[in-house]
Amino acid sequence: MRAAVLHGPGDVRLEERPAPRILEPGDAIVRIPAATVCGSDLWSYRGINPVPEPVPFGHEYCGIVEETGSEVRSVRPGQFVIGSFFASDNTCPHCRAGFQSSCQHRVLMGGCQAEAVRVPMADGTLVVTPGVPAGDLVPSLLALSDVMGTGWFAAECAGVRPGMTVAVVGDGAVGLCGVLAAAQRGAGRIIAMSRHPERRKLALEFGATDIVAARGADGVAQVAEMTGGIGADAVLECVGTSESMLQALRSTRPGGFVGYVGVPHGVSLPAEELFFSHVGLRGGPAPVRRFLPELIDLVWDRRIDPGKVFDMTLPLDQVAEGYRAMDERRAVKVLLRP
Amino acid sequence: MRAAVLHGPGDVRLEERPAPRILEPGDAIVRIPAATVCGSDLWSYRGINPVPEPVPFGHEYCGIVEETGSEVRSVRPGQFVIGSFFASDNTCPHCRAGFQSSCQHRVLMGGCQAEAVRVPMADGTLVVTPGVPAGDLVPSLLALSDVMGTGWFAAECAGVRPGMTVAVVGDGAVGLCGVLAAAQRGAGRIIAMSRHPERRKLALEFGATDIVAARGADGVAQVAEMTGGIGADAVLECVGTSESMLQALRSTRPGGFVGYVGVPHGVSLPAEELFFSHVGLRGGPAPVRRFLPELIDLVWDRRIDPGKVFDMTLPLDQVAEGYRAMDERRAVKVLLRP
Repeated sequence: MRAAVLHGPGDVRLEERPAPRILEPGDAIVRIPAATVCGSDLWSYRGINPVPEPVPFGHEYCGIVEETGSEVRSVRPGQFVIGSFFASDNTCPHCRAGFQSSCQHRVLMGGCQAEAVRVPMADGTLVVTPGVPAGDLVPSLLALSDVMGTGWFAAECAGVRPGMTVAVVGDGAVGLCGVLAAAQRGAGRIIAMSRHPERRKLALEFGATDIVAARGADGVAQVAEMTGGIGADAVLECVGTSESMLQALRSTRPGGFVGYVGVPHGVSLPAEELFFSHVGLRGGPAPVRRFLPELIDLVWDRRIDPGKVFDMTLPLDQVAEGYRAMDERRAVKVLLRP
Repeated sequence: MRAAVLHGPGDVRLEERPAPRILEPGDAIVRIPAATVCGSDLWSYRGINPVPEPVPFGHEYCGIVEETGSEVRSVRPGQFVIGSFFASDNTCPHCRAGFQSSCQHRVLMGGCQAEAVRVPMADGTLVVTPGVPAGDLVPSLLALSDVMGTGWFAAECAGVRPGMTVAVVGDGAVGLCGVLAAAQRGAGRIIAMSRHPERRKLALEFGATDIVAARGADGVAQVAEMTGGIGADAVLECVGTSESMLQALRSTRPGGFVGYVGVPHGVSLPAEELFFSHVGLRGGPAPVRRFLPELIDLVWDRRIDPGKVFDMTLPLDQVAEGYRAMDERRAVKVLLRP
């Protein structure tokens, strides 16, 4: 089986690896019709996260169940399924509270840029779609595995409610999905922070009502001006740097929330400023499993189309080019066809 | 008029000062039957917050309206009133959203350890009690001006709901009021973190079901053990140090909130840990004005008695001894009688 492996900074290779097989009675093997590159992979690709040894890459997946372990009850071969980047038992106290990405037995997925993948705790992790989807639905279903679920969580954490003014910091796939989530949740005004023409276009298509190109203090000042000096009711932080976090915090009105889903890298939070700002902060790795049933319905009924974030499609054997395109911001998100 | 003035670290003096008078048409003059020392004053008293020049001290107050400016409509001389430590117009967008302590025209009160005080924006700031209270109610009404309103806000920020397991970090007056607030909001289990016998006793009286004396990692471990390894559903942080903040964050279950009301001093928040913990954070200076009507009713009907936090009463001219007693933790909170 062919699979992408990260060997070190900037070094992704497609290699022949053993096909996955059932190791535990709760496992399922899923055959993958389309894989993808995640922006969060770039931290490792760029050498910011250390890569001590070669690692099978990719954590987003959907596809047809090929085989299940003896204890799997809720999925069976032939069904089309989607799972989150964290496998979860969906029965522990954290799962029951809706935080499956903090599952007491969670397993971070890997090796999904491949022809097939082993999914542990299949009963807890996988959600079956209403049928085998038409091919044109596959990108949107694949997007639910991470970026759309993560944008959705950002909107939830920020407390987006109908009529609100929402600002979104970050114009990557997650930020764009955050715009889509805010629109679905009825936001009255959605300010997308972006200076990239193609991404701005997609943000508008997803429901943004305003675009702000300025960043940092200038971006904050523009949001303030647009909101009569009050700040946005809810802000989605979808990057994970100190600059983006400060921009998000300072764009939020007192009593509002920043929903942050960009994995923080070297972020220092100014505690005293946060205190006096009255801005709440919540986020983390999205519990995508919780949102999958609702999001699958929205995609299935063609009410949302998060697959539009895929603006480049490559055969799997060009995975290295996919990473280069994402790294150089030539692509929002790359779809890989095995 | 006699009033307390902070001259520098450890140097509080009672001095003769001009009686307050109406300066703006929205002002009211309130005669003070009882003043108090706030734990947050200790940051200045201990020299941690700089004191560049002598400053009239004290920001908690209640009492009888003596005089009002020409534009004041909602209070009149002879009425008993309570206000927050932040005066607010109660009409700006932040006030209307319930965050009066972020009022666009807020004024931090001072000079309340005195016989009378000028309150700006009286219509927005002061709440009238149902009548002139019996003397034994005054301490509890005075407590609403800051510590009880702040404990209440901590419980709200932490999202305390009926049946929850709540941990309270900090056994000062605010922490103890946080216990009382959690109990009023129907918490099923309230773990008070305290090693001080008298404070533990009061915590139990206010509704704590468990006491944990351990701090730091040991305190976190005990809360984990008491909650089956899950963590508390909601945690109130009522101190403001890095140690107390980390203890609070690490005692909270994924998806839970830390409500933090201790003014952060030198606190560094570990952004990446916070992210992966799934713990939300919200707090700030309590918008006490929002809670006053509800809390006044609770005190008036003798359903809560936050005045119990006053465990030492001194004449105003012994204000210096009051600060020493608070500084040395010989008193939870000192009541000063002019």
